Amino acid sequence: MIGIFDSGVGGLTVVRALRRLLPDAPLLYFGDTARTPYGNKGPETIQRFAVEDAQLLLDRGATVLVVACNTMSAVALEVLKKKFQKVSIFDVITPAVAAVVQRAPDRVGVIGTRATIGSGVYERRIKEQRPKTNVVSQACPMLVPFIEEGLAESSDTTRFVRRYLIPLLQHQVQALVLGCTHYPFVKKAIAYKMGKRTTIIDSAEVTATAVAEYARKHPEVVQGGTGLSASRQGVTLLFSDLAAHTEELARAWAGPGVKIEPVSIQDLEEKH
Amino acid sequence: MIGIFDSGVGGLTVVRALRRLLPDAPLLYFGDTARTPYGNKGPETIQRFAVEDAQLLLDRGATVLVVACNTMSAVALEVLKKKFQKVSIFDVITPAVAAVVQRAPDRVGVIGTRATIGSGVYERRIKEQRPKTNVVSQACPMLVPFIEEGLAESSDTTRFVRRYLIPLLQHQVQALVLGCTHYPFVKKAIAYKMGKRTTIIDSAEVTATAVAEYARKHPEVVQGGTGLSASRQGVTLLFSDLAAHTEELARAWAGPGVKIEPVSIQDLEEKH
Repeated sequence: MIGIFDSGVGGLTVVRALRRLLPDAPLLYFGDTARTPYGNKGPETIQRFAVEDAQLLLDRGATVLVVACNTMSAVALEVLKKKFQKVSIFDVITPAVAAVVQRAPDRVGVIGTRATIGSGVYERRIKEQRPKTNVVSQACPMLVPFIEEGLAESSDTTRFVRRYLIPLLQHQVQALVLGCTHYPFVKKAIAYKMGKRTTIIDSAEVTATAVAEYARKHPEVVQGGTGLSASRQGVTLLFSDLAAHTEELARAWAGPGVKIEPVSIQDLEEKH
Repeated sequence: MIGIFDSGVGGLTVVRALRRLLPDAPLLYFGDTARTPYGNKGPETIQRFAVEDAQLLLDRGATVLVVACNTMSAVALEVLKKKFQKVSIFDVITPAVAAVVQRAPDRVGVIGTRATIGSGVYERRIKEQRPKTNVVSQACPMLVPFIEEGLAESSDTTRFVRRYLIPLLQHQVQALVLGCTHYPFVKKAIAYKMGKRTTIIDSAEVTATAVAEYARKHPEVVQGGTGLSASRQGVTLLFSDLAAHTEELARAWAGPGVKIEPVSIQDLEEKH
């Protein structure tokens, strides 16, 4: 079973992309809505939460982990890999960096939360492989609140998108990484503003592609029908806080036919 | 020592008002920035967090508690009073309701987070005392993100303020409760839009006034200079996550001369 986790609802864009690529795979998602958002928090807090989130999914039968959150991928991936050495762990940054390197642009833009951009992880990882690439980074802290309010397509959101993209347009970036799993919801506005010459690299999309490739090579991961109890089939979404607004968003974002369940925050904390 | 707590930085408006009214009182503030915001979370999560926050302040020497958060006041006050029966606990709703009742308007507006408005607490408490009052409530979920981004005075924020106030203008409310401790930062825009005929009741302000009155009757609470160790004098702000952005906001909002310290989130959780 593929375990996918995020600080909240953003990682559901990865679930959506995975369902399209692997329609029969059993998926278990955990969104830590009780402690969301992680994007403005410090590294130690985020690392601690990430380990707790991963443990929850492993305890419930996940055999592969997908860190569907740029913030956690940026600041907690090493900690996760050290803690859970026997588990295959996918993050959203590695596939996005690979996609950048493959396209070999001279100038690339990265947008994300304050924590992701502050970590400098995209710039560092891209330059490790292509040292002369010019990387222009821009934090877009208001986009997540707008998207979670269901305002992704409003003119207010578009106004902020336009402002945040100014430095990227000035540097004429040839590729732009959507370094936050919420951003597929504003991809249209971003693509329109950046113009046809800029390739948009959607970290949710490229991550789902990488996981799907792995799953095809390791079919035991996605054999939903055989050997798994009914509770482990299909798509289950767990949330540490299940307010009405969250449930609405989750149903809208993850698509039809999902099971939604609350988990107690004690379940997260008491493992330590 | 007066202990004041909030889900994040919003309660600092109460700290600011208290410093003005009681300049020598030792104040200890806790902002649960690791798990902020509470405003979109469910009641059980908020109640659990509230008890943990209060325990932290009591453990560090607080003798009076101020719940400087409308969301917690709305959904966790009864739980707190039951758990800590010997402690005087102030909330931000009771003084605001008292201020409404004293002004005796026929039509009153209340604005707040989704959780506060969803709880219906203002309407219920006002109608207990004045059953014929017409209470018009409006959730304003985007205002907190705007204010925490330092955009309180931007035209984007003003645009949202105007939209949120439409139903309150239509009902010609005579008084408007700012039912969120963040909102003093947009008070000017709100007062301007509502016009001179509407009295603005600022829950941070009326709460600080109620606490100051109590402190004058119980001087042992505010005797900062005598019998207290140096660490318990002055104003100390504790945060469960101390990102650079939080520290900046805290210094700007609480005023000069405060001590800022991180607390570990384990300290919160391990009491249970």
